[in-house]
Amino acid sequence: MALKLYSFWRSIATYRVRIALNLKGIVPDEIVDVDLLKGKQREDAFREVNPQMVIPALIDGDGPVMFQSMAILEYLEETHPQPPLLPRDAKGRARVRGLCQIAISDAHPMSVPRVRNYLTNELKLDPPTLLKWIRHWQQEALRAYEAHLTNGSGTARYCHGDTITLADACLAGQVVGSGFFDIDVKAYPACARIYDACMQNEAFAKAHPLKQPGAPEKISH
Amino acid sequence: MALKLYSFWRSIATYRVRIALNLKGIVPDEIVDVDLLKGKQREDAFREVNPQMVIPALIDGDGPVMFQSMAILEYLEETHPQPPLLPRDAKGRARVRGLCQIAISDAHPMSVPRVRNYLTNELKLDPPTLLKWIRHWQQEALRAYEAHLTNGSGTARYCHGDTITLADACLAGQVVGSGFFDIDVKAYPACARIYDACMQNEAFAKAHPLKQPGAPEKISH
Repeated sequence: MALKLYSFWRSIATYRVRIALNLKGIVPDEIVDVDLLKGKQREDAFREVNPQMVIPALIDGDGPVMFQSMAILEYLEETHPQPPLLPRDAKGRARVRGLCQIAISDAHPMSVPRVRNYLTNELKLDPPTLLKWIRHWQQEALRAYEAHLTNGSGTARYCHGDTITLADACLAGQVVGSGFFDIDVKAYPACARIYDACMQNEAFAKAHPLKQPGAPEKISH
Repeated sequence: MALKLYSFWRSIATYRVRIALNLKGIVPDEIVDVDLLKGKQREDAFREVNPQMVIPALIDGDGPVMFQSMAILEYLEETHPQPPLLPRDAKGRARVRGLCQIAISDAHPMSVPRVRNYLTNELKLDPPTLLKWIRHWQQEALRAYEAHLTNGSGTARYCHGDTITLADACLAGQVVGSGFFDIDVKAYPACARIYDACMQNEAFAKAHPLKQPGAPEKISH
C-alpha cells in the first residue's frame, strides 16, 4: 500500500513526522512538496487534500487523508509498533504525550504562517515586534520543557527513559524551530543535552529541515 | 486510588476532560479549583503541581502529575476503556485524534489567558481588536471542523460514527468556547447538529463550564 506524505522542508510539524518515519524505517513512496512560503497550502490542489490548509498530511493506501502531526504520530505508532515510541505504562505514556503537546499545542501554533500573516497584515506588527512575539512563545515552551525535564520523574538519556519516544521528536522540533529565530538551546541545559543525544541518531539528523529538498543552506527569518 | 483534578469552570481544556470523566463514569475524589481569572495558576502552590502553569492537571493515586488535556484524555481511555471514546480501526482513530487537535492545537491556544495578556500588555491591543483576534481564530477552527465534518468520511450522528468519541468532547469545547465570544455555531451546520446531539447527553451537559462551581450565570468577555 502506497504511503504519500505532504511535506515542506521548513514545516516543524512535518519534521516530527519525518523523525518517526525514519525511526520506524518507513520510507514514503511519494513525498509531495507543499511550499508554505509561496502559500501553496492555500491553493485548490492542496485544499482538496486538507481543507484546513496545513501540513503534514498523510495518505496510507486508499486513504482517507490523515491530518495533524500528533494524530499521524499515533497512527504510525499503532500501525508500525517497532521500535515503540511510547512507553508501555499508561502514566509514562501520559507524560510523553503531555511533553509532545507543549510543542504541538502551546508553542508551535503561535508562529505558523497563518498567525504570522495575521500579526503582520491585520495587527500591523513591524518585523522586530513580530520576531519578539515568536521568540517569546518559543522561549516559554523551552522553559516549560526545561521545568518538566528537570523536575519530572522519568527523564534520563532522553525525555522519558533511555529510549527515544515521541516526546524527543517533538522536543527536537521545538529546538530546531526555536533555532530558526536565533534562540540558543544552551540556555536550557536539559533540553540541550537531550537534543544533542537525539541528533547523534541518524533518524533525527537526516530528517532535519535544512537537509530536505528545497531547503536553503542557512535559515533566514 | 484517589483521583485529583485541577480545574476551573471557564477552562475549555478542563471541560474536555470533565466530559470524558462523565462519559466513563469516573468521579474524581477531589477537585481543586485554580482560578485562572485571578492568576492562581501562576502562584507557587500550583507551579509545584505544573510548572507550565496551565490546567487541567490530573493526579491518579501516587502520581506523578499528568498535564495537557489530550494526554489526559488518552490516559483515561487507556485506563478506563469503557465506553470506548476512540474507534477500533487505526485510520478512524487518526481521524478522531486529528479532529481533536484542531481545537486543542490550532484554535484554543490563541485565546488562553497568557496569550490574551501578551496581546493586551505587550502589543497594547484595545478590547475590540483583542476580541476580533479571538473571534478570528475561533471561526477558523469552526470552519476547519465544518469542512472536515462535511467532506470527510466517517461523520454520522457524531463526529465519527454513531457513538461519541474524543472528537465530540473537543468539538463541544470548541463550540462552547466560541460561544463565550458571541460566535453562533448555527453558521456551521454540521458542527451545530453534532453539538446539539452531544448536549442531549448528560455527560456533556453537566460538564458545561457554566454548570461548574464558581461560574457566573452568564459569560462576559
